[in-house]
Order: sequence, then structure tokens, then C-alpha cells
Amino acid sequence: MVTIYGMSDSGNCYKPRLLIALLGRRFRHVEVSTIDGGTRQPGFLAKTPNGKVPLLELDDGRTLPESNAILAFLGEGSRFVPEDAFTRAEMLGWMFFEQYSHEPHVAVRRSLMIYPHLKDKATPGRLAETLAGGEKAFRVMEHRLSQADWLAGDRASLADIALYAYTHLGPQGGYDLQPYPGIRAWLGRVATLPGYRPITWLPED
Amino acid sequence: MVTIYGMSDSGNCYKPRLLIALLGRRFRHVEVSTIDGGTRQPGFLAKTPNGKVPLLELDDGRTLPESNAILAFLGEGSRFVPEDAFTRAEMLGWMFFEQYSHEPHVAVRRSLMIYPHLKDKATPGRLAETLAGGEKAFRVMEHRLSQADWLAGDRASLADIALYAYTHLGPQGGYDLQPYPGIRAWLGRVATLPGYRPITWLPED
Repeated sequence: MVTIYGMSDSGNCYKPRLLIALLGRRFRHVEVSTIDGGTRQPGFLAKTPNGKVPLLELDDGRTLPESNAILAFLGEGSRFVPEDAFTRAEMLGWMFFEQYSHEPHVAVRRSLMIYPHLKDKATPGRLAETLAGGEKAFRVMEHRLSQADWLAGDRASLADIALYAYTHLGPQGGYDLQPYPGIRAWLGRVATLPGYRPITWLPED
Repeated sequence: MVTIYGMSDSGNCYKPRLLIALLGRRFRHVEVSTIDGGTRQPGFLAKTPNGKVPLLELDDGRTLPESNAILAFLGEGSRFVPEDAFTRAEMLGWMFFEQYSHEPHVAVRRSLMIYPHLKDKATPGRLAETLAGGEKAFRVMEHRLSQADWLAGDRASLADIALYAYTHLGPQGGYDLQPYPGIRAWLGRVATLPGYRPITWLPED
């Protein structure tokens, strides 16, 4: 059984948990947080020099960082990876979009708003910048989701899991999703996939 | 023959060109720049709503954004994609690292330093922040490259191409690579791969 080191309320850490739930598999959760310094402990840094969660650990001790690479590994050969090479590349394109054009705004603004220890960093300039960046990302998603049910191809893929994680938390970051009917309908489709679990879900011991 | 819309001196746009050179294939280059507003033209935005280069276009008109997704598509089935699923996921992990923890510092600082139109954005705070971020990314790479010849597995993969692009331009962004002997040796290994072409290389018409 794989172990996932992660922070229970992080969208990045929710991604592999959601995929595992949708696949009906099991995993072990180990809470490691950026807030209490857990990701900067020598024991954790020995497992992953970039010091980020989530981190996947296999039974044989091999580790894999990067939420979207973990999705690719765990999703390999499943129905969430398109068979067609071009559609698979489109899926990856959305996952790179997520990390470059979406997460640094949508996830960061949520952190600035919900974590008291980041209060000093939540300057008006930073809040305005992340608002504009997040809204641009939502417009790009809406362009696709106003015409299609899923981000890549004609069924749910790893791209939908990756982008669902922080998009559905948008309101916590002060984003209004009202102007994006395509995104709102898609959020509903993801949340009704068989096996779906919310971000609060952790496995029982 | 595929078309790549891109900016000749962008590291992100160099990635697919370098892969194509290493594979001995051909492509058509169309210069589209973020500087003269080319990426914000309606004709270009109709091809890709996020308005970023590089953009891959196939003969049948289908388009694919995101430099690292383009690498995945063009590299499919080649010697630059590891056969082992875990090594392939490690390769993708480095590619996501590149877009999240490396490019936003190393590429951005270079842009701030070489493009006159960005002079106003090159504040002391921004330069210090991107210096620290880039150096952290280099330390993570050095950790691997002081122990191994390549980033994922035991031969060159798409991860090496993705991270070579802006790492070898580090000095243009004011980064000193002297403290990273593993990175410097690896840069040399990439530059001597058969078929290698420098960033200035564009196909002849």
C-alpha cells in the first residue's frame, strides 16, 4: 500500500487522494504540514530535497514528488488516462497549465486568506495580482468547459482531478464563480463521479 | 510537418526545437512574440485562449499549448521517454518542478535583466526574490546531478531537455553556476548529445 505525505487541507495533496478514491484503492496518510515546519524537517528533506507535499512513498521506499506526477503514476493504465496520444498530451497540457497559470494564483490567494500566519503577505497588491491571475485562468477553463464536458477528450481524466482541487476551493480565496457557468457545471460533474470523496476525507486507520 | 509558433530567444520555445533536433526531425517555425503583442492578437488567441508560446500546430489544424506537454507529445515512444512507469513519472516530476519551482524564478529573472521593456518590473525586491528562488531550484537539481548523470533514470529524457532550456541561460539572469559542479557537468552532457542545436538555431526555409 502506498503512503502519501500531505497536508489534509491542501488542494495539491487532495489530488492523489481523490484519484485513489475514484479508483477504489487504499493508501496510508501521513500528515506533514508547511505550517508547523514539518516540510522543513531533516527527515522529510531526506526523502525529497525540494521539501514539498504531497510526496508519494512506495512500499520499497522509493519516493515521488509533484502532485501531478503522482497522479500520472497512480493513474497509469486507468480510465483517467486517455488512450489517444494527442488527447493524453492535451491532458498533460492542462496539468502544466494548472501548475503555472492557475495554482500560483488560485491556491496562493486562498492561502493568503485562510492562514493567519500569512496575514503579513496578504498585501493589497498581492491580493489584486492573484485575483486577476485566477480570473484569467478561469476564463481559459470556461472557454473549454462552455463547449465540452471535460478538459481533455470526452471523459474525466487526470486533468479534471488536477484542476478540480483548487477550482472548487476558489470561493475560499474570494473568487466569484458565478460568471463561469461552464466551470460550475463541470464542478458538479466531478463531484458526482462514482467513488468521489471531498477534500476533508482521509482514510481510516 | 508540424508548426511551432514561438519566440526565438525563449527557453520555453527552445525546448521543442531542441527535442526535434535531437530526434532528427523537421518543423516549421513561426515567430510570435510576447514583446510586440503577437501573443495577444485575436488570430493567435483563437488558436490558444491562454495566449502563450510555444504552441504546436499539427497539419490537420489541431493545436497543443504548454512547452512540456509538447515535449511529451513529440517525444512519445522515443528514447527520451523512459520505458519504466516509475522512471517516467520521475521525469514528469522534474518537468512539473521546472514549471513551478524553476521557470518562475530562473526564466523570469533573465527576462527582467535582458528585456528593456520590463525594466520597471525589475525592482530590487523582485530581483532578490527570483535570485533566492532560482538558487533553491539549482540546489535541488544539484542534489540529483551530483549523484547521477541525468535527472530521471540513467539516460537523457524529456526532463533534461525541459530543465536545460533555462538552466543554461542562468548566467543571463545573473545566476552564478560555479557552486553547482553537478549541474555544470550535466549542461556539458546535454550539449554534446548527437543532434544538439543551440537556442539560436532555427530551421532554414
